[in-house]
Amino acid sequence: MAAWSERLAGVRGVLLDISGVLYDGGEGGGAAIAGSVEAVARLKRSRLKVRFCTNESQKSRADLVGLLRRLGFDVSEGEVTAPAPAACLILKQRGLRPHLLVHDGVHSEFDQIDTSNPNCVVIADAGEGFSYRNMNKAFQVLMELENPVLFSLGKGRYYKETSGLMLDVGPYMKALEYACGIEAEVVGKPSPEFFKSALQEMGVEAHEAIMIGDDIVGDVGGAQRYGMRALQVRTGKFRPSDEHHPEVKADGYVDNLAEAVDLLLQHADK
Amino acid sequence: MAAWSERLAGVRGVLLDISGVLYDGGEGGGAAIAGSVEAVARLKRSRLKVRFCTNESQKSRADLVGLLRRLGFDVSEGEVTAPAPAACLILKQRGLRPHLLVHDGVHSEFDQIDTSNPNCVVIADAGEGFSYRNMNKAFQVLMELENPVLFSLGKGRYYKETSGLMLDVGPYMKALEYACGIEAEVVGKPSPEFFKSALQEMGVEAHEAIMIGDDIVGDVGGAQRYGMRALQVRTGKFRPSDEHHPEVKADGYVDNLAEAVDLLLQHADK
Repeated sequence: MAAWSERLAGVRGVLLDISGVLYDGGEGGGAAIAGSVEAVARLKRSRLKVRFCTNESQKSRADLVGLLRRLGFDVSEGEVTAPAPAACLILKQRGLRPHLLVHDGVHSEFDQIDTSNPNCVVIADAGEGFSYRNMNKAFQVLMELENPVLFSLGKGRYYKETSGLMLDVGPYMKALEYACGIEAEVVGKPSPEFFKSALQEMGVEAHEAIMIGDDIVGDVGGAQRYGMRALQVRTGKFRPSDEHHPEVKADGYVDNLAEAVDLLLQHADK
Repeated sequence: MAAWSERLAGVRGVLLDISGVLYDGGEGGGAAIAGSVEAVARLKRSRLKVRFCTNESQKSRADLVGLLRRLGFDVSEGEVTAPAPAACLILKQRGLRPHLLVHDGVHSEFDQIDTSNPNCVVIADAGEGFSYRNMNKAFQVLMELENPVLFSLGKGRYYKETSGLMLDVGPYMKALEYACGIEAEVVGKPSPEFFKSALQEMGVEAHEAIMIGDDIVGDVGGAQRYGMRALQVRTGKFRPSDEHHPEVKADGYVDNLAEAVDLLLQHADK
Protein backbone atom coordinates (compact mmCIF):
# COMPACT_ATOMS: atom_id res chain seq x y z
CA MET A 1 0.00 0.00 0.00
CA ALA A 2 1.36 3.37 -1.00
CA ALA A 3 2.18 5.62 1.98
CA TRP A 4 0.60 8.60 0.28
CA SER A 5 -2.78 6.88 0.29
CA GLU A 6 -3.45 8.36 3.73
CA ARG A 7 -3.95 11.61 1.88
CA LEU A 8 -7.20 10.15 0.55
CA ALA A 9 -8.91 10.40 3.95
CA GLY A 10 -11.99 12.60 3.96
CA VAL A 11 -12.60 12.52 0.19
CA ARG A 12 -16.34 12.78 -0.51
CA GLY A 13 -16.39 13.50 -4.22
CA VAL A 14 -14.40 12.31 -7.22
CA LEU A 15 -13.93 14.17 -10.51
CA LEU A 16 -12.92 11.83 -13.32
CA ASP A 17 -11.17 12.95 -16.45
CA ILE A 18 -12.44 10.92 -19.43
CA SER A 19 -9.91 10.65 -22.28
CA GLY A 20 -6.85 8.71 -21.16
CA VAL A 21 -8.53 7.63 -17.90
CA LEU A 22 -11.71 5.90 -19.03
CA TYR A 23 -10.71 5.25 -22.63
CA ASP A 24 -8.20 6.07 -25.36
CA GLY A 25 -9.74 7.60 -28.48
CA GLY A 26 -8.82 6.31 -31.92
CA GLU A 27 -10.05 4.28 -34.86
CA GLY A 28 -13.71 3.32 -34.56
CA GLY A 29 -14.14 5.54 -31.50
CA GLY A 30 -11.41 4.07 -29.35
CA ALA A 31 -11.04 1.48 -26.62
CA ALA A 32 -11.82 1.33 -22.90
CA ILE A 33 -8.72 1.27 -20.69
CA ALA A 34 -8.46 -2.11 -18.94
CA GLY A 35 -10.38 -2.14 -15.65
CA SER A 36 -11.93 1.31 -16.08
CA VAL A 37 -15.50 0.22 -16.87
CA GLU A 38 -15.66 -1.82 -13.66
CA ALA A 39 -13.82 0.89 -11.69
CA VAL A 40 -16.45 3.50 -12.59
CA ALA A 41 -19.21 1.07 -11.67
CA ARG A 42 -17.64 0.37 -8.27
CA LEU A 43 -17.18 4.07 -7.60
CA LYS A 44 -20.83 4.76 -8.42
CA ARG A 45 -21.96 1.95 -6.09
CA SER A 46 -19.92 3.51 -3.25
CA ARG A 47 -20.83 6.41 -1.00
CA LEU A 48 -18.56 8.74 -2.97
CA LYS A 49 -20.06 11.26 -5.31
CA VAL A 50 -18.81 11.02 -8.88
CA ARG A 51 -18.73 13.49 -11.77
CA PHE A 52 -16.97 13.47 -15.11
CA CYS A 53 -14.87 16.54 -15.88
CA THR A 54 -13.50 16.62 -19.40
CA ASN A 55 -11.84 19.00 -21.81
CA GLU A 56 -13.19 16.93 -24.70
CA SER A 57 -14.07 19.44 -27.37
CA GLN A 58 -14.18 17.34 -30.55
CA LYS A 59 -17.53 15.78 -29.65
CA SER A 60 -20.77 17.09 -28.22
CA ARG A 61 -21.64 15.78 -24.76
CA ALA A 62 -24.36 13.63 -26.32
CA ASP A 63 -21.90 11.99 -28.73
CA LEU A 64 -19.29 11.51 -26.01
CA VAL A 65 -21.75 9.87 -23.65
CA GLY A 66 -23.06 7.68 -26.48
CA LEU A 67 -19.53 6.48 -27.20
CA LEU A 68 -18.77 5.82 -23.52
CA ARG A 69 -21.98 3.86 -23.10
CA ARG A 70 -21.13 1.73 -26.12
CA LEU A 71 -17.79 1.00 -24.45
CA GLY A 72 -19.70 -0.18 -21.38
CA PHE A 73 -19.50 2.84 -19.06
CA ASP A 74 -22.39 3.85 -16.82
CA VAL A 75 -22.54 7.59 -17.54
CA SER A 76 -25.24 10.07 -18.49
CA GLU A 77 -25.06 13.51 -20.10
CA GLY A 78 -26.08 15.26 -16.88
CA GLU A 79 -23.01 13.86 -15.11
CA VAL A 80 -20.52 15.46 -17.52
CA THR A 81 -18.92 18.89 -17.18
CA ALA A 82 -17.52 19.89 -20.59
CA PRO A 83 -16.12 23.13 -22.01
CA ALA A 84 -18.46 23.75 -24.96
CA PRO A 85 -21.61 24.25 -22.84
CA ALA A 86 -19.56 26.36 -20.40
CA ALA A 87 -18.37 28.52 -23.31
CA CYS A 88 -21.94 29.01 -24.57
CA LEU A 89 -22.93 30.33 -21.15
CA ILE A 90 -20.08 32.86 -21.18
CA LEU A 91 -20.85 33.96 -24.75
CA LYS A 92 -24.49 34.60 -23.85
CA GLN A 93 -23.62 36.41 -20.62
CA ARG A 94 -21.21 38.73 -22.41
CA GLY A 95 -23.22 39.20 -25.61
CA LEU A 96 -20.41 37.79 -27.78
CA ARG A 97 -20.82 36.35 -31.27
CA PRO A 98 -18.07 33.84 -32.00
CA HIS A 99 -16.20 32.85 -35.10
CA LEU A 100 -15.93 29.10 -34.44
CA LEU A 101 -12.81 27.06 -35.17
CA VAL A 102 -14.09 23.77 -33.78
CA HIS A 103 -14.54 20.17 -34.86
CA ASP A 104 -17.70 19.39 -36.86
CA GLY A 105 -18.69 17.01 -34.06
CA VAL A 106 -19.10 19.80 -31.51
CA HIS A 107 -20.81 22.38 -33.73
CA SER A 108 -24.22 21.29 -32.47
CA GLU A 109 -23.37 22.56 -28.97
CA PHE A 110 -23.33 26.08 -30.47
CA ASP A 111 -26.69 25.78 -32.28
CA GLN A 112 -28.29 28.44 -30.08
CA ILE A 113 -25.40 30.91 -30.45
CA ASP A 114 -25.44 33.84 -32.88
CA THR A 115 -22.33 33.59 -35.06
CA SER A 116 -23.12 36.46 -37.44
CA ASN A 117 -20.67 39.37 -37.67
CA PRO A 118 -18.30 37.79 -35.13
CA ASN A 119 -16.69 39.81 -32.34
CA CYS A 120 -14.63 37.00 -30.81
CA VAL A 121 -13.08 33.65 -31.73
CA VAL A 122 -13.66 30.28 -30.07
CA ILE A 123 -11.18 27.49 -30.75
CA ALA A 124 -11.46 23.90 -29.64
CA ASP A 125 -9.68 20.68 -30.49
CA ALA A 126 -10.51 20.84 -34.20
CA GLY A 127 -8.22 17.98 -35.28
CA GLU A 128 -7.87 18.04 -39.06
CA GLY A 129 -9.89 21.27 -38.93
CA PHE A 130 -6.67 23.01 -37.85
CA SER A 131 -5.75 23.64 -41.48
CA TYR A 132 -3.66 26.64 -42.44
CA ARG A 133 -6.68 28.17 -44.08
CA ASN A 134 -8.88 27.83 -40.97
CA MET A 135 -6.17 29.08 -38.64
CA ASN A 136 -5.53 32.05 -40.91
CA LYS A 137 -9.23 32.89 -41.00
CA ALA A 138 -9.42 32.86 -37.17
CA PHE A 139 -6.28 35.01 -37.09
CA GLN A 140 -7.73 37.52 -39.55
CA VAL A 141 -10.99 37.79 -37.59
CA LEU A 142 -9.00 38.54 -34.41
CA MET A 143 -6.78 41.10 -36.14
CA GLU A 144 -9.81 43.00 -37.40
CA LEU A 145 -11.23 43.42 -33.88
CA GLU A 146 -10.33 46.46 -31.83
CA ASN A 147 -10.24 44.31 -28.69
CA PRO A 148 -9.55 40.77 -29.88
CA VAL A 149 -11.08 38.12 -27.59
CA LEU A 150 -10.02 34.50 -28.00
CA PHE A 151 -11.58 31.63 -26.07
CA SER A 152 -9.83 28.28 -26.02
CA LEU A 153 -11.72 25.19 -24.90
CA GLY A 154 -8.92 23.79 -22.76
CA LYS A 155 -5.22 24.31 -23.34
CA GLY A 156 -3.98 20.72 -23.40
CA ARG A 157 -0.69 20.12 -25.20
CA TYR A 158 -1.59 16.74 -26.66
CA TYR A 159 -3.63 13.63 -26.04
CA LYS A 160 -3.13 10.00 -26.81
CA GLU A 161 -5.04 8.08 -29.41
CA THR A 162 -4.60 4.39 -30.03
CA SER A 163 -2.39 5.41 -33.00
CA GLY A 164 -0.12 7.76 -31.02
CA LEU A 165 0.15 11.24 -29.52
CA MET A 166 -2.00 13.92 -31.14
CA LEU A 167 -1.77 17.71 -30.88
CA ASP A 168 -4.53 19.17 -28.73
CA VAL A 169 -5.97 22.68 -28.84
CA GLY A 170 -3.29 24.24 -26.60
CA PRO A 171 -0.56 24.55 -29.25
CA TYR A 172 -3.02 26.24 -31.61
CA MET A 173 -4.12 28.58 -28.82
CA LYS A 174 -0.46 29.53 -28.33
CA ALA A 175 -0.08 30.07 -32.07
CA LEU A 176 -2.96 32.56 -32.19
CA GLU A 177 -1.84 34.25 -28.96
CA TYR A 178 1.59 34.85 -30.45
CA ALA A 179 0.30 35.87 -33.87
CA CYS A 180 -2.07 38.47 -32.40
CA GLY A 181 -0.12 39.48 -29.28
CA ILE A 182 -3.03 38.53 -26.99
CA GLU A 183 -3.80 36.12 -24.18
CA ALA A 184 -6.62 33.61 -24.59
CA GLU A 185 -9.32 32.97 -22.02
CA VAL A 186 -9.31 29.24 -21.28
CA VAL A 187 -12.67 27.55 -20.79
CA GLY A 188 -12.10 24.09 -19.31
CA LYS A 189 -9.43 22.58 -17.13
CA PRO A 190 -7.24 24.07 -15.58
CA SER A 191 -9.47 27.15 -15.31
CA PRO A 192 -10.68 27.64 -11.69
CA GLU A 193 -14.20 28.56 -12.89
CA PHE A 194 -14.45 25.20 -14.62
CA PHE A 195 -13.52 23.19 -11.52
CA LYS A 196 -15.85 25.38 -9.49
CA SER A 197 -18.82 24.60 -11.69
CA ALA A 198 -18.04 20.85 -11.69
CA LEU A 199 -17.82 20.84 -7.88
CA GLN A 200 -21.04 22.85 -7.52
CA GLU A 201 -22.87 20.40 -9.75
CA MET A 202 -21.55 17.56 -7.56
CA GLY A 203 -22.33 19.42 -4.32
CA VAL A 204 -18.87 18.93 -2.81
CA GLU A 205 -16.30 21.44 -1.52
CA ALA A 206 -12.85 21.58 -3.09
CA HIS A 207 -11.10 20.28 0.06
CA GLU A 208 -13.38 17.21 0.04
CA ALA A 209 -12.79 16.41 -3.62
CA ILE A 210 -10.17 14.64 -5.68
CA MET A 211 -9.42 14.84 -9.40
CA ILE A 212 -8.19 11.77 -11.26
CA GLY A 213 -6.56 12.50 -14.59
CA ASP A 214 -3.77 11.68 -17.01
CA ASP A 215 -2.64 15.29 -17.51
CA ILE A 216 -0.11 16.44 -14.93
CA VAL A 217 -0.70 20.12 -15.68
CA GLY A 218 -4.33 20.42 -16.75
CA ASP A 219 -5.84 17.85 -14.40
CA VAL A 220 -3.46 17.55 -11.46
CA GLY A 221 -1.96 21.04 -11.32
CA GLY A 222 -5.27 22.74 -12.07
CA ALA A 223 -7.21 20.80 -9.44
CA GLN A 224 -4.54 21.35 -6.79
CA ARG A 225 -4.47 25.08 -7.44
CA TYR A 226 -8.21 25.08 -6.85
CA GLY A 227 -7.71 23.40 -3.45
CA MET A 228 -8.49 19.83 -4.47
CA ARG A 229 -6.36 16.75 -4.19
CA ALA A 230 -5.33 15.03 -7.42
CA LEU A 231 -4.03 11.68 -8.64
CA GLN A 232 -2.32 11.04 -11.94
CA VAL A 233 -2.95 7.73 -13.71
CA ARG A 234 -0.18 6.08 -15.68
CA THR A 235 -2.48 5.66 -18.69
CA GLY A 236 -3.43 7.91 -21.60
CA LYS A 237 -0.91 10.66 -22.20
CA PHE A 238 1.06 9.90 -19.01
CA ARG A 239 4.81 9.90 -19.51
CA PRO A 240 7.36 8.73 -16.91
CA SER A 241 8.87 12.23 -16.79
CA ASP A 242 5.54 13.52 -15.42
CA GLU A 243 6.50 12.04 -12.02
CA HIS A 244 9.43 14.48 -11.93
CA HIS A 245 7.55 17.48 -13.31
CA PRO A 246 9.35 20.70 -12.32
CA GLU A 247 6.21 22.45 -11.08
CA VAL A 248 3.48 19.94 -10.30
CA LYS A 249 3.51 16.99 -7.91
CA ALA A 250 0.41 14.82 -7.73
CA ASP A 251 -0.87 13.64 -4.34
CA GLY A 252 -0.30 10.17 -5.75
CA TYR A 253 0.46 8.26 -8.93
CA VAL A 254 -1.49 5.10 -9.78
CA ASP A 255 -1.18 2.62 -12.62
CA ASN A 256 -4.73 3.18 -13.78
CA LEU A 257 -8.23 4.14 -12.69
CA ALA A 258 -8.82 0.67 -11.20
CA GLU A 259 -5.95 1.17 -8.75
CA ALA A 260 -7.14 4.67 -7.91
CA VAL A 261 -10.60 3.35 -7.07
CA ASP A 262 -9.16 0.49 -4.98
CA LEU A 263 -7.27 3.01 -2.87
CA LEU A 264 -10.14 5.48 -2.67
CA LEU A 265 -12.57 2.82 -1.48
CA GLN A 266 -10.07 1.72 1.17
CA HIS A 267 -9.06 5.14 2.48
CA ALA A 268 -11.56 7.83 1.57
CA ASP A 269 -13.85 7.14 4.52
CA LYS A 270 -11.14 7.34 7.14
CA MET B 1 12.77 66.91 -42.90
CA ALA B 2 12.42 64.55 -39.97
CA ALA B 3 14.58 65.59 -36.99
CA TRP B 4 15.61 62.00 -36.44
CA SER B 5 17.25 61.87 -39.87
CA GLU B 6 20.46 63.15 -38.26
CA ARG B 7 20.79 59.66 -36.85
CA LEU B 8 21.55 58.48 -40.37
CA ALA B 9 24.98 60.10 -40.36
CA GLY B 10 27.85 57.67 -40.81
CA VAL B 11 25.81 54.87 -42.36
CA ARG B 12 27.95 52.90 -44.82
CA GLY B 13 25.84 49.81 -45.40
CA VAL B 14 22.12 49.14 -45.81
CA LEU B 15 20.34 45.83 -45.14
CA LEU B 16 17.01 45.65 -46.93
CA ASP B 17 14.19 43.36 -45.90
CA ILE B 18 12.39 42.08 -49.00
CA SER B 19 8.75 41.12 -48.36
CA GLY B 20 6.73 44.18 -47.38
CA VAL B 21 9.60 46.54 -48.31
CA LEU B 22 10.36 45.70 -51.94
CA TYR B 23 7.11 43.93 -52.76
CA ASP B 24 3.96 42.37 -51.32
CA GLY B 25 3.54 38.69 -52.14
CA GLY B 26 0.24 37.37 -53.45
CA GLU B 27 -1.59 36.13 -56.51
CA GLY B 28 0.71 35.67 -59.50
CA GLY B 29 3.78 36.31 -57.35
CA GLY B 30 2.81 39.66 -55.96
CA ALA B 31 3.39 43.32 -56.76
CA ALA B 32 6.28 45.75 -56.31
CA ILE B 33 5.62 48.44 -53.69
CA ALA B 34 5.37 51.84 -55.39
CA GLY B 35 8.76 53.51 -55.71
CA SER B 36 10.77 50.53 -54.45
CA VAL B 37 12.26 49.39 -57.77
CA GLU B 38 13.71 52.86 -58.37
CA ALA B 39 14.73 53.22 -54.71
CA VAL B 40 16.84 50.05 -54.86
CA ALA B 41 18.40 51.25 -58.10
CA ARG B 42 19.32 54.63 -56.58
CA LEU B 43 20.77 52.97 -53.52
CA LYS B 44 22.93 50.70 -55.65
CA ARG B 45 24.18 53.67 -57.68
CA SER B 46 25.22 55.43 -54.45
CA ARG B 47 28.33 54.93 -52.37
CA LEU B 48 26.37 52.89 -49.81
CA LYS B 49 26.78 49.15 -49.69
CA VAL B 50 23.54 47.22 -50.07
CA ARG B 51 22.49 43.71 -49.11
CA PHE B 52 19.15 41.96 -48.95
CA CYS B 53 18.36 40.25 -45.64
CA THR B 54 15.17 38.21 -45.70
CA ASN B 55 13.34 35.63 -43.63
CA GLU B 56 11.65 34.38 -46.79
CA SER B 57 11.40 30.65 -46.36
CA GLN B 58 8.67 29.67 -48.83
CA LYS B 59 10.93 30.07 -51.84
CA SER B 60 14.51 29.15 -52.66
CA ARG B 61 16.86 32.08 -53.12
CA ALA B 62 16.90 31.36 -56.87
CA ASP B 63 13.10 31.54 -57.09
CA LEU B 64 12.94 34.66 -54.94
CA VAL B 65 15.52 36.46 -57.01
CA GLY B 66 13.77 35.36 -60.22
CA LEU B 67 10.52 36.83 -58.96
CA LEU B 68 12.16 40.10 -57.89
CA ARG B 69 13.90 40.50 -61.22
CA ARG B 70 10.59 39.96 -63.05
CA LEU B 71 9.17 42.76 -60.88
CA GLY B 72 12.02 44.99 -62.08
CA PHE B 73 14.46 44.83 -59.17
CA ASP B 74 18.22 44.77 -59.71
CA VAL B 75 19.20 41.91 -57.39
CA SER B 76 21.30 38.76 -57.70
CA GLU B 77 21.36 35.57 -55.63
CA GLY B 78 24.74 36.40 -54.13
CA GLU B 79 23.34 39.59 -52.60
CA VAL B 80 20.68 37.77 -50.54
CA THR B 81 21.07 36.45 -46.99
CA ALA B 82 18.27 33.93 -46.36
CA PRO B 83 17.58 31.43 -43.58
CA ALA B 84 17.46 28.13 -45.51
CA PRO B 85 21.12 28.21 -46.61
CA ALA B 86 22.07 29.33 -43.08
CA ALA B 87 20.16 26.37 -41.63
CA CYS B 88 21.91 23.92 -43.98
CA LEU B 89 25.26 25.16 -42.71
CA ILE B 90 24.24 24.59 -39.08
CA LEU B 91 22.82 21.13 -39.83
CA LYS B 92 26.08 20.08 -41.50
CA GLN B 93 28.25 21.54 -38.73
CA ARG B 94 26.29 19.71 -36.04
CA GLY B 95 25.71 16.46 -37.94
CA LEU B 96 21.94 16.79 -37.71
CA ARG B 97 19.42 15.08 -40.00
CA PRO B 98 16.20 17.09 -40.18
CA HIS B 99 12.58 16.18 -40.56
CA LEU B 100 11.48 19.05 -42.82
CA LEU B 101 8.19 20.89 -42.44
CA VAL B 102 8.78 23.45 -45.18
CA HIS B 103 7.11 24.75 -48.31
CA ASP B 104 7.65 22.72 -51.49
CA GLY B 105 9.28 25.80 -53.00
CA VAL B 106 12.20 25.72 -50.58
CA HIS B 107 12.84 21.95 -50.51
CA SER B 108 15.54 22.31 -53.14
CA GLU B 109 17.70 24.30 -50.69
CA PHE B 110 17.97 21.08 -48.63
CA ASP B 111 18.92 18.81 -51.54
CA GLN B 112 22.38 18.14 -50.08
CA ILE B 113 21.09 17.39 -46.58
CA ASP B 114 20.58 13.86 -45.24
CA THR B 115 16.99 13.59 -44.01
CA SER B 116 16.99 9.87 -43.19
CA ASN B 117 16.24 8.78 -39.62
CA PRO B 118 15.72 12.37 -38.45
CA ASN B 119 17.18 13.67 -35.19
CA CYS B 120 15.79 17.19 -35.38
CA VAL B 121 12.96 19.15 -36.98
CA VAL B 122 13.23 22.20 -39.25
CA ILE B 123 10.13 24.32 -39.80
CA ALA B 124 9.77 27.23 -42.17
CA ASP B 125 6.87 29.24 -43.52
CA ALA B 126 5.06 26.23 -45.00
CA GLY B 127 1.82 28.05 -45.84
CA GLU B 128 -0.86 25.47 -46.67
CA GLY B 129 1.72 22.86 -45.66
CA PHE B 130 0.89 23.69 -42.04
CA SER B 131 -1.86 21.09 -42.05
CA TYR B 132 -2.83 19.29 -38.85
CA ARG B 133 -1.31 16.12 -40.22
CA ASN B 134 2.06 17.74 -41.00
CA MET B 135 2.18 19.57 -37.68
CA ASN B 136 1.33 16.37 -35.84
CA LYS B 137 4.07 14.49 -37.69
CA ALA B 138 6.68 17.12 -36.71
CA PHE B 139 5.39 16.96 -33.12
CA GLN B 140 5.66 13.17 -33.04
CA VAL B 141 9.21 13.24 -34.41
CA LEU B 142 10.20 15.70 -31.67
CA MET B 143 8.50 13.70 -28.92
CA GLU B 144 10.40 10.57 -29.92
CA LEU B 145 13.79 12.29 -29.53
CA GLU B 146 15.60 12.18 -26.23
CA ASN B 147 16.82 15.75 -26.78
CA PRO B 148 14.32 17.32 -29.15
CA VAL B 149 15.90 20.01 -31.36
CA LEU B 150 13.64 22.35 -33.33
CA PHE B 151 14.94 24.92 -35.81
CA SER B 152 12.60 27.64 -37.00
CA LEU B 153 13.49 29.67 -40.09
CA GLY B 154 12.49 33.02 -38.62
CA LYS B 155 9.82 33.60 -36.02
CA GLY B 156 7.67 36.21 -37.74
CA ARG B 157 4.09 36.49 -36.55
CA TYR B 158 2.53 37.23 -39.93
CA TYR B 159 3.19 38.85 -43.26
CA LYS B 160 1.06 40.74 -45.70
CA GLU B 161 -0.02 39.43 -49.05
CA THR B 162 -2.04 41.41 -51.52
CA SER B 163 -5.09 39.48 -50.21
CA GLY B 164 -4.50 40.23 -46.53
CA LEU B 165 -2.45 39.23 -43.48
CA MET B 166 -1.11 35.67 -43.46
CA LEU B 167 0.25 33.59 -40.57
CA ASP B 168 4.02 33.22 -40.74
CA VAL B 169 6.18 30.47 -39.22
CA GLY B 170 6.38 32.05 -35.74
CA PRO B 171 2.94 30.96 -34.52
CA TYR B 172 3.67 27.39 -35.60
CA MET B 173 7.04 27.51 -33.88
CA LYS B 174 5.24 28.58 -30.70
CA ALA B 175 2.74 25.75 -31.14
CA LEU B 176 5.48 23.10 -31.30
CA GLU B 177 7.44 24.74 -28.46
CA TYR B 178 4.38 24.54 -26.22
CA ALA B 179 3.38 21.04 -27.33
CA CYS B 180 6.86 19.63 -26.63
CA GLY B 181 7.92 21.90 -23.77
CA ILE B 182 11.03 23.04 -25.65
CA GLU B 183 12.53 26.23 -27.05
CA ALA B 184 13.25 26.49 -30.77
CA GLU B 185 16.51 27.74 -32.24
CA VAL B 186 15.66 30.57 -34.62
CA VAL B 187 17.63 30.76 -37.86
CA GLY B 188 16.97 34.12 -39.51
CA LYS B 189 16.06 37.56 -38.19
CA PRO B 190 16.11 38.51 -35.30
CA SER B 191 18.89 36.02 -34.50
CA PRO B 192 22.23 37.84 -33.93
CA GLU B 193 24.13 35.18 -35.92
CA PHE B 194 21.99 35.96 -38.93
CA PHE B 195 22.66 39.71 -38.84
CA LYS B 196 26.31 38.96 -38.24
CA SER B 197 26.60 36.86 -41.36
CA ALA B 198 24.73 39.44 -43.49
CA LEU B 199 27.05 42.22 -42.27
CA GLN B 200 30.16 40.11 -42.84
CA GLU B 201 29.05 39.41 -46.40
CA MET B 202 28.57 43.17 -46.89
CA GLY B 203 31.86 44.02 -45.18
CA VAL B 204 30.37 46.59 -42.83
CA GLU B 205 30.39 46.85 -39.00
CA ALA B 206 27.10 46.87 -37.10
CA HIS B 207 27.49 50.50 -35.98
CA GLU B 208 27.91 51.59 -39.63
CA ALA B 209 24.85 49.70 -40.85
CA ILE B 210 21.12 50.27 -40.97
CA MET B 211 18.29 47.79 -41.41
CA ILE B 212 15.14 48.79 -43.29
CA GLY B 213 12.16 46.56 -42.67
CA ASP B 214 8.42 46.36 -42.13
CA ASP B 215 8.63 44.17 -39.00
CA ILE B 216 9.03 46.17 -35.81
CA VAL B 217 10.26 43.17 -33.82
CA GLY B 218 12.12 40.94 -36.28
CA ASP B 219 13.72 43.67 -38.41
CA VAL B 220 13.92 46.76 -36.21
CA GLY B 221 14.26 45.22 -32.75
CA GLY B 222 16.60 42.48 -33.93
CA ALA B 223 18.93 44.85 -35.80
CA GLN B 224 19.05 47.33 -32.91
CA ARG B 225 19.89 44.58 -30.43
CA TYR B 226 22.79 43.69 -32.71
CA GLY B 227 24.05 47.29 -32.57
CA MET B 228 22.65 48.49 -35.87
CA ARG B 229 20.30 51.34 -36.58
CA ALA B 230 16.89 50.49 -38.05
CA LEU B 231 14.03 52.16 -39.89
CA GLN B 232 10.50 50.84 -40.16
CA VAL B 233 8.61 51.40 -43.40
CA ARG B 234 4.85 52.00 -43.30
CA THR B 235 4.31 49.34 -45.97
CA GLY B 236 3.87 45.56 -45.84
CA LYS B 237 2.76 44.34 -42.43
CA PHE B 238 3.27 47.75 -40.78
CA ARG B 239 0.41 48.72 -38.48
CA PRO B 240 -0.02 52.17 -36.89
CA SER B 241 0.29 50.63 -33.42
CA ASP B 242 3.88 49.63 -34.30
CA GLU B 243 4.90 53.26 -33.72
CA HIS B 244 3.88 52.83 -30.08
CA HIS B 245 5.32 49.36 -29.59
CA PRO B 246 5.89 48.71 -25.88
CA GLU B 247 9.44 47.41 -26.35
CA VAL B 248 10.88 48.54 -29.68
CA LYS B 249 11.36 52.05 -31.02
CA ALA B 250 12.77 52.43 -34.52
CA ASP B 251 15.39 55.09 -35.21
CA GLY B 252 12.88 56.44 -37.66
CA TYR B 253 9.60 55.65 -39.43
CA VAL B 254 9.21 56.31 -43.16
CA ASP B 255 6.28 55.96 -45.51
CA ASN B 256 8.11 53.55 -47.78
CA LEU B 257 11.51 52.50 -49.06
CA ALA B 258 11.63 55.45 -51.45
CA GLU B 259 11.45 57.91 -48.52
CA ALA B 260 14.06 55.89 -46.62
CA VAL B 261 16.45 56.09 -49.56
CA ASP B 262 15.81 59.84 -50.01
CA LEU B 263 16.81 60.45 -46.42
CA LEU B 264 19.77 58.07 -46.52
CA LEU B 265 21.20 59.68 -49.62
CA GLN B 266 20.83 63.11 -47.99
CA HIS B 267 22.25 62.28 -44.57
CA ALA B 268 24.32 59.11 -44.57
CA ASP B 269 27.51 60.82 -45.68
CA LYS B 270 27.43 63.49 -42.99
